[in-house]
Amino acid sequence: MNKNKPLILVTNDDGITAPGIRALIEVMKEIGDVVVVAPDSPQSGMGHAITISDTLFCDKITLKEDDNHKEYSCSGTPADCVKIGTQEILNRKPDLCVSGINHGSNSSINVIYSGTMSAAVEAGVEGIPAIGFSLLDYSLNADFSPCKKYVKSITQEVLKNGLPKGVVLNVNFPKLEASKIKGTKICKQADAHWEEEFDKRTNPQGRDYYWLTGNFINNDTSEKTDEWALANGFVSIVPVQFDLTAHHFLKDLNSWDLNE
Amino acid sequence: MNKNKPLILVTNDDGITAPGIRALIEVMKEIGDVVVVAPDSPQSGMGHAITISDTLFCDKITLKEDDNHKEYSCSGTPADCVKIGTQEILNRKPDLCVSGINHGSNSSINVIYSGTMSAAVEAGVEGIPAIGFSLLDYSLNADFSPCKKYVKSITQEVLKNGLPKGVVLNVNFPKLEASKIKGTKICKQADAHWEEEFDKRTNPQGRDYYWLTGNFINNDTSEKTDEWALANGFVSIVPVQFDLTAHHFLKDLNSWDLNE
Repeated sequence: MNKNKPLILVTNDDGITAPGIRALIEVMKEIGDVVVVAPDSPQSGMGHAITISDTLFCDKITLKEDDNHKEYSCSGTPADCVKIGTQEILNRKPDLCVSGINHGSNSSINVIYSGTMSAAVEAGVEGIPAIGFSLLDYSLNADFSPCKKYVKSITQEVLKNGLPKGVVLNVNFPKLEASKIKGTKICKQADAHWEEEFDKRTNPQGRDYYWLTGNFINNDTSEKTDEWALANGFVSIVPVQFDLTAHHFLKDLNSWDLNE
Repeated sequence: MNKNKPLILVTNDDGITAPGIRALIEVMKEIGDVVVVAPDSPQSGMGHAITISDTLFCDKITLKEDDNHKEYSCSGTPADCVKIGTQEILNRKPDLCVSGINHGSNSSINVIYSGTMSAAVEAGVEGIPAIGFSLLDYSLNADFSPCKKYVKSITQEVLKNGLPKGVVLNVNFPKLEASKIKGTKICKQADAHWEEEFDKRTNPQGRDYYWLTGNFINNDTSEKTDEWALANGFVSIVPVQFDLTAHHFLKDLNSWDLNE
């Protein structure tokens, strides 16, 4: 590995063989030295889970021989991959951590359920500039090629400018061909949510079980939101923080009578 | 169930038989009608995980017969419990969701890894006032009795005043006897993190594996933080939001050259 090139840790939540991470690795190899530490199986919906009650495996694998590119397959979650990548595998702090490209949206409230973003946040907590990338297409055959030029330009800007302490980027791509994408837009997280529907079934032994399904409900029509940007052909970029304190409510809360 | 009493959904991440949720249920039964939907096994460190690639079981159980109190054991995560509780089990929206009392701290950065808080956040996303409670004692034999009067007063204030849209409460108790606790303190999340250490071992088949361990590093000495409050004998209360947008960075980010 070359000391003058940025060292980039790559992970995801769809698993190390997913097409999305392959596309991300390709772009990162044009920019720096790449070390991949990614889950050995899909981890979607894992939120910011970490493995504390079980053992972790993390094995070097060779998907493709290369000079500036190593890969490790990990039995844990995306956040585990970042922890073990930075502490056990890399011998210096990486210059950047990128996660994705996720097969499916992590815009709006999806950010809190997102394994992709949990990896970026974990890196951010450790003081590493970090970006999560997601494409609004759940298909295994999703076309990531229109994302690539933006992945590259956003990554290069982060490497050039850095990110403030406590902030990582959440980037989502609309499902559009390259010529239809209008560029990037800096956004806030739309105030949307999922309305769950449970598909109730009965197993062959007569016990009820459920599949979680749902509808995405967005009543936040502001043009400043990621949902608006994506619906209107833009790549959305939301700066994400992990100080979850609702600072605007501290004063009111102080007036409550909480001790009796 | 009584229509004039508040309907309270109770969950946790240590599992439905944990002493912490038993203490929480006792207090809630003094306040309202209680429906418990909690994981059938411990889920600590699950973050905001949801079960989308697997089936969910959710069975009514009888730990103790009671008029204003029902219990369901769920195979999913804390966030799953809130989703299935509100959508499948309760026939009206609950007036409150409480989660805990967790065996162990969810102060500072622990909030992002916390199954306890993910349940409260999930309820908040669904527009239900919600509180997560945690005691700084990992022991199964932890003494929850000093927490009870504060659990009651905080819950009653939330029922009386409501919470702003998009805000839930993160309450942590110091490990102290009742007489040593100085009261509650409204706080912000301390800017602390974990320094991971992986305990590397070799299994009988010769394959390396890891246990995740770590040290909690807090350089944020502000008296406004939850860590300060807890270290100084106070019950910490942090209002938590799930709009993760780093609003303070939007303007700077807009000046970046992201499209080429």
